[in-house]
Amino acid sequence: MIDMKISRLGECECWSPLKLNNTLEASADFGFVPETAMVMHDSEVNSGVKSSGLLFEKAGPREKIFFKPAETRAAIVTCGGLCPGLNTVIRSVFLCLYHIYGVRTVYGIRYGYQGLNPEIGEPPILLNPDMVDRIHQEGGTILGSSRGNQPISAMVDFLVKNNINILFTVGGDGTQRGAHLIAKEAEKRRLSISVVGIPKTIDNDIMYIKKTFGFATAVDRAHSVIRCAHTEAKSYSNGIGLVKLMGRDSGFIAAFATIVSQDVNFTIIPEIPLVLEGEKGLLETLMRRILNRKHAVIAVAEGAGQNLFAGRKQKDVSGNVLHNDIGTFLKERIAEYFRERKIPINLKYIDPSYIIRSVPTNSEDCFLCDQYARNATHAAMAGKTDMIVGYWNDFMHLPMTHATHQRQQVDPNGFLWHGVISSTGQPSRWK
Amino acid sequence: MIDMKISRLGECECWSPLKLNNTLEASADFGFVPETAMVMHDSEVNSGVKSSGLLFEKAGPREKIFFKPAETRAAIVTCGGLCPGLNTVIRSVFLCLYHIYGVRTVYGIRYGYQGLNPEIGEPPILLNPDMVDRIHQEGGTILGSSRGNQPISAMVDFLVKNNINILFTVGGDGTQRGAHLIAKEAEKRRLSISVVGIPKTIDNDIMYIKKTFGFATAVDRAHSVIRCAHTEAKSYSNGIGLVKLMGRDSGFIAAFATIVSQDVNFTIIPEIPLVLEGEKGLLETLMRRILNRKHAVIAVAEGAGQNLFAGRKQKDVSGNVLHNDIGTFLKERIAEYFRERKIPINLKYIDPSYIIRSVPTNSEDCFLCDQYARNATHAAMAGKTDMIVGYWNDFMHLPMTHATHQRQQVDPNGFLWHGVISSTGQPSRWK
Amino acid sequence: MIDMKISRLGECECWSPLKLNNTLEASADFGFVPETAMVMHDSEVNSGVKSSGLLFEKAGPREKIFFKPAETRAAIVTCGGLCPGLNTVIRSVFLCLYHIYGVRTVYGIRYGYQGLNPEIGEPPILLNPDMVDRIHQEGGTILGSSRGNQPISAMVDFLVKNNINILFTVGGDGTQRGAHLIAKEAEKRRLSISVVGIPKTIDNDIMYIKKTFGFATAVDRAHSVIRCAHTEAKSYSNGIGLVKLMGRDSGFIAAFATIVSQDVNFTIIPEIPLVLEGEKGLLETLMRRILNRKHAVIAVAEGAGQNLFAGRKQKDVSGNVLHNDIGTFLKERIAEYFRERKIPINLKYIDPSYIIRSVPTNSEDCFLCDQYARNATHAAMAGKTDMIVGYWNDFMHLPMTHATHQRQQVDPNGFLWHGVISSTGQPSRWK
Amino acid sequence: MIDMKISRLGECECWSPLKLNNTLEASADFGFVPETAMVMHDSEVNSGVKSSGLLFEKAGPREKIFFKPAETRAAIVTCGGLCPGLNTVIRSVFLCLYHIYGVRTVYGIRYGYQGLNPEIGEPPILLNPDMVDRIHQEGGTILGSSRGNQPISAMVDFLVKNNINILFTVGGDGTQRGAHLIAKEAEKRRLSISVVGIPKTIDNDIMYIKKTFGFATAVDRAHSVIRCAHTEAKSYSNGIGLVKLMGRDSGFIAAFATIVSQDVNFTIIPEIPLVLEGEKGLLETLMRRILNRKHAVIAVAEGAGQNLFAGRKQKDVSGNVLHNDIGTFLKERIAEYFRERKIPINLKYIDPSYIIRSVPTNSEDCFLCDQYARNATHAAMAGKTDMIVGYWNDFMHLPMTHATHQRQQVDPNGFLWHGVISSTGQPSRWK
Repeated sequence: MIDMKISRLGECECWSPLKLNNTLEASADFGFVPETAMVMHDSEVNSGVKSSGLLFEKAGPREKIFFKPAETRAAIVTCGGLCPGLNTVIRSVFLCLYHIYGVRTVYGIRYGYQGLNPEIGEPPILLNPDMVDRIHQEGGTILGSSRGNQPISAMVDFLVKNNINILFTVGGDGTQRGAHLIAKEAEKRRLSISVVGIPKTIDNDIMYIKKTFGFATAVDRAHSVIRCAHTEAKSYSNGIGLVKLMGRDSGFIAAFATIVSQDVNFTIIPEIPLVLEGEKGLLETLMRRILNRKHAVIAVAEGAGQNLFAGRKQKDVSGNVLHNDIGTFLKERIAEYFRERKIPINLKYIDPSYIIRSVPTNSEDCFLCDQYARNATHAAMAGKTDMIVGYWNDFMHLPMTHATHQRQQVDPNGFLWHGVISSTGQPSRWK
Repeated sequence: MIDMKISRLGECECWSPLKLNNTLEASADFGFVPETAMVMHDSEVNSGVKSSGLLFEKAGPREKIFFKPAETRAAIVTCGGLCPGLNTVIRSVFLCLYHIYGVRTVYGIRYGYQGLNPEIGEPPILLNPDMVDRIHQEGGTILGSSRGNQPISAMVDFLVKNNINILFTVGGDGTQRGAHLIAKEAEKRRLSISVVGIPKTIDNDIMYIKKTFGFATAVDRAHSVIRCAHTEAKSYSNGIGLVKLMGRDSGFIAAFATIVSQDVNFTIIPEIPLVLEGEKGLLETLMRRILNRKHAVIAVAEGAGQNLFAGRKQKDVSGNVLHNDIGTFLKERIAEYFRERKIPINLKYIDPSYIIRSVPTNSEDCFLCDQYARNATHAAMAGKTDMIVGYWNDFMHLPMTHATHQRQQVDPNGFLWHGVISSTGQPSRWK
Repeated sequence: MIDMKISRLGECECWSPLKLNNTLEASADFGFVPETAMVMHDSEVNSGVKSSGLLFEKAGPREKIFFKPAETRAAIVTCGGLCPGLNTVIRSVFLCLYHIYGVRTVYGIRYGYQGLNPEIGEPPILLNPDMVDRIHQEGGTILGSSRGNQPISAMVDFLVKNNINILFTVGGDGTQRGAHLIAKEAEKRRLSISVVGIPKTIDNDIMYIKKTFGFATAVDRAHSVIRCAHTEAKSYSNGIGLVKLMGRDSGFIAAFATIVSQDVNFTIIPEIPLVLEGEKGLLETLMRRILNRKHAVIAVAEGAGQNLFAGRKQKDVSGNVLHNDIGTFLKERIAEYFRERKIPINLKYIDPSYIIRSVPTNSEDCFLCDQYARNATHAAMAGKTDMIVGYWNDFMHLPMTHATHQRQQVDPNGFLWHGVISSTGQPSRWK
Repeated sequence: MIDMKISRLGECECWSPLKLNNTLEASADFGFVPETAMVMHDSEVNSGVKSSGLLFEKAGPREKIFFKPAETRAAIVTCGGLCPGLNTVIRSVFLCLYHIYGVRTVYGIRYGYQGLNPEIGEPPILLNPDMVDRIHQEGGTILGSSRGNQPISAMVDFLVKNNINILFTVGGDGTQRGAHLIAKEAEKRRLSISVVGIPKTIDNDIMYIKKTFGFATAVDRAHSVIRCAHTEAKSYSNGIGLVKLMGRDSGFIAAFATIVSQDVNFTIIPEIPLVLEGEKGLLETLMRRILNRKHAVIAVAEGAGQNLFAGRKQKDVSGNVLHNDIGTFLKERIAEYFRERKIPINLKYIDPSYIIRSVPTNSEDCFLCDQYARNATHAAMAGKTDMIVGYWNDFMHLPMTHATHQRQQVDPNGFLWHGVISSTGQPSRWK
């Protein structure tokens, strides 16, 4: 068994205020999680698949904590692109710190990591219960966001100067890589600062995490958009609805939305190399369907088909590889293909990115955000650091470095992809 | 008073079956509309505005009708771009013909006017109650649509060959111009074919018609998209949300959606010439807002700002002027403007056209579709032709030529535009 | 022609600040409405219906106003049951006073008329732009509401004591009767206090007003509930879905929701006396449908079928007649009827009142609320009093006494009821 | 380790058609699940909780199957109360049988078990792809449902007479108890009939199953209703919103909806005995909140507080204990309590059962339904019987008897209940 160790700032010598809470009679009532509790990665046996042997530290409230609530000063920062649920996470972290632990100083950092760099950022705001009261019903982030990191040293200076001993970093890969460096720098300076990440990826592509917040909402919305594309396609002769969905390296949104909608005929994801030409390529397969059924719906993840583009890749300020635009590429290539064959088509291309990212959460995600936020707070109060909160069979802790070194992807031999091809009827692989 | 005469195929000598309907006791119960009844265009007096003196023929069931139901064969065709409510119109026309008048042969023409031209079109389908049962809950059109007209003579031949004596044309300007030519050709050939149009314009821009179906749903959806743009804009420093809405010649969708959302700061419509440069131009006004409030939302109708483009205009197959793309133009011009001034911005551009056009109707439009459809059916059964059904203070009849020769536009001095500038705080005119 | 005179506190000698507004260049730009402008009630001619000859004063901004903005102190009160749009009305009245006229003191009265009676009410709150910023997206009323009137004299004392010269009363019949008495008492005391009502009736039953806010949203929601009832009914053998909708004296919600849903088989409204027994009564007609089609959906307005109850009526604190509960009565009577005939049925009864009343507005109503609010503000600033704002062909002013002395009802011979019976297939009258 | 054995009709000697499917190149591509594969119940170690040692048979397609597709005749029956997703389950079972396995005869049994009893039921319908095409977008069940069982012998006779060798039973506890008896009777008669259950419980209360379909949608809708109750409560002085939610024996809907809405102040579930009187009872706690905050929202599961009712329990036709109505009981008791103390309150009671049960699924449930249905089909084709499909860490098989002998309940010491009390601030237990 491989036990994924989580860093801790020191011994927990302070009784959790939950134990003394007058609404709870005894610690047993609260179900404190012992430090030894672990969550297994593998729940399958005798299936012929080699076990990973991974064990994750179980998340949850600890009976004894590291930080004394009265002396604790926390800060929350939201980074990167929008994802449904940011406000719910901010709210539940704040409320758990404030009402459950009694922490009175919780800062909201403005506009991502920029707000941790006084040279270019705006000063933080001191949060209070009124400010966060209704924000879980709104999309976006009341703190603001930005892309990219800031100088690590400047950010740690900021934390020191403001006596902040807990930093919650809500963001994706790039953000958590930055958070890891902040934690390392704090350790180097022998500062008792806990850095706890809450993973934000609308693509649901973080390794070892089954479900990140915002993903369920994104699938919901992607489904609505696919329904529009299907209506457009069916309402015209040889109508083709082409929808570009999010998914830089992983096709989870496209795959789930396909199964939910049951209206997609071709789902194109980064995990399955795309072949356009040839009898079993996309174009000829599409033409056969159009001639046969007179309409088709295509859902393509933004990171799919990159094998078709020659040349070097560029990176954005967060360090993400910048993809070539498969959506417009396909739109043009398909149009050209049918034009050459003198088959009139009606192609409608939809790129709904912002109207998916900016909406409030659905119920599923609202619940998930609340749990992520509370578990992150419990972890931070117990002095855990350089870690993110995750969910795999149960909520657990994951070292930051493990979460960011690799992407989770759709298994082309797994139930999800089979659900997709059962619904679409497309070939399981392009040839 | 100017009385807008409606053409009629001949005398109505057949008692309406409604009169004899066993659920109705007497004609008084049904409120038949006398042929003489008119609806006034102007309902305002003493306001200093010159009265138009226009009188429209009132729509509604007639006590005596022209077509004998048992001998009547009707057809419905839907043309042009999608608009919420097409299926509801198809359904209510069919049900009114079938259940209220007892007409048993109602064809659905496939893919717009193409289906009236046997050379290129598919054969019509014979509608029945099961086919239309649930279609009012779906977007699009079960009949299919296409853009552009077909040879008038071929289409009239088709009607003759299939013994069709009523044709319902559901479509916009171009469609109704085609319908008028069909009616004229039928008249020339001395055929008793009634051609009744049901106006379809998501832009709500048909002259003398206050409210067309699909418009309310479009405003609803535009509102949702603006909310997304607002969330994106507020969540980033100097965030700008730019939404391109439908509105080729008239800014009704942009204006209503602005008032509904209360989140737009600049509404740009075709009726108000756009000025970009100068102290009171859009760019400088926008910059002042960004510097002051750090975010802005812009809603631009697709036909706005055409004064900024030099050169000749092209037309599409339906005869509509093809506009230059004001959306991407503004996106680039704004980015350039701020780049030159070294002010970093976060601009998100959203073009939601298809996801607005393809949705099912909201309740408002569902009701409207039902009324348009039933009134069109009453008109056709009474032998009216070369007309469309409209709504102005009440449902009424409008000669096709009057509906298509001019667009309805937002009055820059009226309550609607004042509602917009009250909500946005923008200048009433660009200078 | 009958001109409905509106009371005015005195001459308007102050130029409207709109005229001087720096975003507007000239008064022509704003389209001020002259005092002489009137809106005709009748827009139909030669239909055999006798003209009412009614003329309403046209609403809108006046070039000269009565109250000097700097000295004006306004108050808003919301009364009675919830209706979608109350917050939007509060917001737009406030913003129009604050931004358009420059009035700085606007009170929100707490919990209806109770807040105007210091003996039992809570003190008012001083509104500001931040408070109302997002409230149009929320149902309910941020001011709170209550039922019933308070002593007129105490309420006028309160206005005097707080130097309030404009009172906006948002409420139904009972509320506006109270508002009329406040206006009369103020007149008696020679106080220059303007009392302007904004009609609130989810039933849309105010005389001379075509469309009140909240109604469209209520129809939307009623439609959703009917869809549930239809699903329940179709999913069981002899399933009957019975939905009680709002509509104390008028069946508008039931009628519109029927036409929108197209799923109702029996619509029962107060305007058509209900007959249960006999061959053409509801029960036997229902039984025939159940035997024939195995399911049925019934929508009943809460005020329908009162002819079936013997005995005296009681009134609630607002003076509304308390109806006997037709919903549970029908539920029991239908169950009994089929039990006696040994026909097993599956009856599901749904009473959705609160989940309709408490939701935010749809786009339609959001627009309407904004217009009602702004026109009420223009009227009040022009010194109009003892009136409500209405909509009939255009926004207009209506003397309070005219609005409350009679209810608007569904015309059993009009297009609306015919739309209903065309959709349901039910008899036009019960016998 | 305790291995939960699943009954199988015999050896699987037929190659799965999936292996030969021309869209799949090799069995590896399809990820067939070996018969030996098991899913562990416990994924937690070292937490002080004794391990159950349970192992479930893993669900999924088998490389070799029992039934020859060409000879297979299947039937689907839906029983009991409505639950979002029934149509999606029907559709995916049918499509998996039809398209993936090539089974051509699939019956839909009408109105639950009644349709398996020719004495009282209607004949089954033969399903085809057109029939099920859009049904996943509709609530209810196109097959119809009914409550209660029918004589086991008659139902098995029906299967024999119609040569049906697979029966899918979609229903709750009572349904699956009936299905178990059918499987036993078939075994006794030495018939090769597979009976596979798909668990339907909107309450999510089936033992060993983490998530049943329809639950997520129910939480979504319950959330909407709670929002209405909150609006009503906040809009009146001493407003109390009381919502009765589903949950006969388990408070999962109430608990999840509480966490999602963040607006509930008191969540009352069957797992925590309710105490009304005394300083730490509901009534006094509620009064303190009302006096302090002037409004409160209460969510009560229908099966909660049964400890307050004396006397014997009755059962319905499905064998479920009939509960006393805690909703109306609380409504009256609360009203009485405040009346006695002369504190005026505004209590609104909402019972939304049917408008939750009858809606279409949200995306989450749509996906779940598809997976449940496909895994049930794979199990049946492999000759499994007397089992239901479940989900616990992964999709798995569960003997029918194990699923029905005990309910899953909210753990009063677990993270879910702590999430509730963290959100509501209520006592963890009533005293």
